[in-house]
Amino acid sequence: MKKITLGIVSAIVLGLFFTGCTEEKKEEKVQVAEKKTYTIKLAMTWPSNFPVFGDAVINFKNMAESMSDGRLTVRIDSKNKHKSPFGIFDMVKAGQYQMGHSASYYWKGKVPNTLYFTTMPFGMTASEQFAWFYYDDGMKLMDKVYAPHNLYSFPGGNTGNQMGGWFQKEINSLDDLKGLKMRIPGFAGEVVSKLGVNVTNIAPGELYTALDRGTIDALEWVGPSLDLRMGFHKVAPYYYTGWHEPATELQFLINRKFMDKLPADLQEIIKVAMKTASYDMLTQTNHESGKNWATMKKEFPNIQVKTFPESVMTAIKKANDDLLVEKAAKDPLAKEILDSQANYIKQIRPWTLLSDYSYLKSLEEK
Amino acid sequence: MKKITLGIVSAIVLGLFFTGCTEEKKEEKVQVAEKKTYTIKLAMTWPSNFPVFGDAVINFKNMAESMSDGRLTVRIDSKNKHKSPFGIFDMVKAGQYQMGHSASYYWKGKVPNTLYFTTMPFGMTASEQFAWFYYDDGMKLMDKVYAPHNLYSFPGGNTGNQMGGWFQKEINSLDDLKGLKMRIPGFAGEVVSKLGVNVTNIAPGELYTALDRGTIDALEWVGPSLDLRMGFHKVAPYYYTGWHEPATELQFLINRKFMDKLPADLQEIIKVAMKTASYDMLTQTNHESGKNWATMKKEFPNIQVKTFPESVMTAIKKANDDLLVEKAAKDPLAKEILDSQANYIKQIRPWTLLSDYSYLKSLEEK
Repeated sequence: MKKITLGIVSAIVLGLFFTGCTEEKKEEKVQVAEKKTYTIKLAMTWPSNFPVFGDAVINFKNMAESMSDGRLTVRIDSKNKHKSPFGIFDMVKAGQYQMGHSASYYWKGKVPNTLYFTTMPFGMTASEQFAWFYYDDGMKLMDKVYAPHNLYSFPGGNTGNQMGGWFQKEINSLDDLKGLKMRIPGFAGEVVSKLGVNVTNIAPGELYTALDRGTIDALEWVGPSLDLRMGFHKVAPYYYTGWHEPATELQFLINRKFMDKLPADLQEIIKVAMKTASYDMLTQTNHESGKNWATMKKEFPNIQVKTFPESVMTAIKKANDDLLVEKAAKDPLAKEILDSQANYIKQIRPWTLLSDYSYLKSLEEK
Repeated sequence: MKKITLGIVSAIVLGLFFTGCTEEKKEEKVQVAEKKTYTIKLAMTWPSNFPVFGDAVINFKNMAESMSDGRLTVRIDSKNKHKSPFGIFDMVKAGQYQMGHSASYYWKGKVPNTLYFTTMPFGMTASEQFAWFYYDDGMKLMDKVYAPHNLYSFPGGNTGNQMGGWFQKEINSLDDLKGLKMRIPGFAGEVVSKLGVNVTNIAPGELYTALDRGTIDALEWVGPSLDLRMGFHKVAPYYYTGWHEPATELQFLINRKFMDKLPADLQEIIKVAMKTASYDMLTQTNHESGKNWATMKKEFPNIQVKTFPESVMTAIKKANDDLLVEKAAKDPLAKEILDSQANYIKQIRPWTLLSDYSYLKSLEEK
């Protein structure tokens, strides 16, 4: 049976009504009976047609629109349109956009504690982090950070474990990090700069040439799901396994006043659509990474997968821990969040190692 | 603004209407204007208040009801009510229930190819299997198996990697499997019986006593999330890592004729609510397993975690492969499904090993 929308129903009711009623009452009734619709303008940090990240936004839009039977319309503006990829926080806060899609750690210069809700070096894996968000204190703590800014923040799609990056030379000791010119933004950049890495920032469009010509010695991007199209495997032979972004979770931002005024069913539709889009993005990332990694290895069978040696990992981990201690000492909320994450890892990691990890290990040994 | 429901709107419209209209038209209008609601009776295989599995069903119900603003009502019957835990397939097919919550591999006696949509020994991990379902051929193939039975089947919640089980004695060689009395149902039971295991079936309520008194030597249940309350850790010292159910995915069943007649927005609400409930259950399982495993180790610090030795793993894997070859030879659709799974593992497993696995390994080595 086709659904009869309320719009049609109203028309029929009004039609019958005017068979025998006065004109005067028309306006009052239309006002009450008409189906209220909402347009959500959503600004994202990414360019148009950006795979995986952009797909998560389209996935959200499609679910929200179909589930609400058109009562919600989502209009997506890419950075090509709004020209302000790192202005999403402010634009949604001010209500210029009702929603945004970005990543929490981009706002650490503005609101330092936003840093902790994307991923942390040596931190939780994606499945651990989802458990922290939804079944431990993650969502509550994120809300504590965003509520004062008239914003809700929700998980917006996970990239899974990001690769450590593409390197021109092998890293055999701490000495090899000294003076290494590397594109590695954010907190991970702070960490390795403590060990002498010369952290540089280069626009995405220029990365390939920079790596090819030796302007930089190394870079990190995402993983096979997005690295393939960048072509880095053609110009750098070493692909390092990840440590710095084990579970990068993107973010949906919503203007709090806008959300709170929506009917309860539409609020729930938005929440569930965001949650599913976030989970789906992790699934899609794994799928695309599997496919793209197979392609890379076929095209360039000499790509060498490497893991930093133990001495380097230990030093990076120490630099990371020291920085976190500094941050916790400066701000009680930072301490609360970092303690919550550390305690959660302590609780869940033994299970992580007992389940998929032991299973995969037992198959590898064969 | 509080949402004004259509029910209230109709009342207001009708109220105005009757100010100046004839009684005769009342019935016609009410019929058109009234909001159509649907009650979904859902039968589940599990008892009332069954943790995690049952929570997935409640999670689905809550999302479906709130997102539809009450146009959907989900009434859950546990096996305590309908008394037919393994009759779900037939009851939903016949329309006695509109939905069911169970596991696909329970129907292998009736429809052999349903076996492949829960988990397979030595098969995909949960994240790999979600990718196979949603971004490769999994959903299409599942539909091929269920459509002839007037059913839709959807993923209904993942338990993650299930533990290999609780053992009274260590398994050091294939000889230790010979004559071993073990509760291990389903396809995995078929596999180990090829190696001389004496597979027994015992009702869940009697398992603890059977293991304690030596009626059986070993059993598998789920993992810490559900094993803790069963108390097995109190009576058996060895906890083996998993191989036989790396990603047990439960199942929502829907009567196809019922679903197809629903308005498109309600169909989408049901689909998204099922998908989210399924993903959420994996997250909840990981959370509960982490918590419960910590409790178990605290209460019984002498629990010994073991993995079958290589010789045993190799023999089990071979018995498993032989059985799959037999099944593929007998049925072209079985072959199509098994080939699709094998090819998908070949594509995605290298990425699985490169991402979380390498990350966890690099931390373990420290």
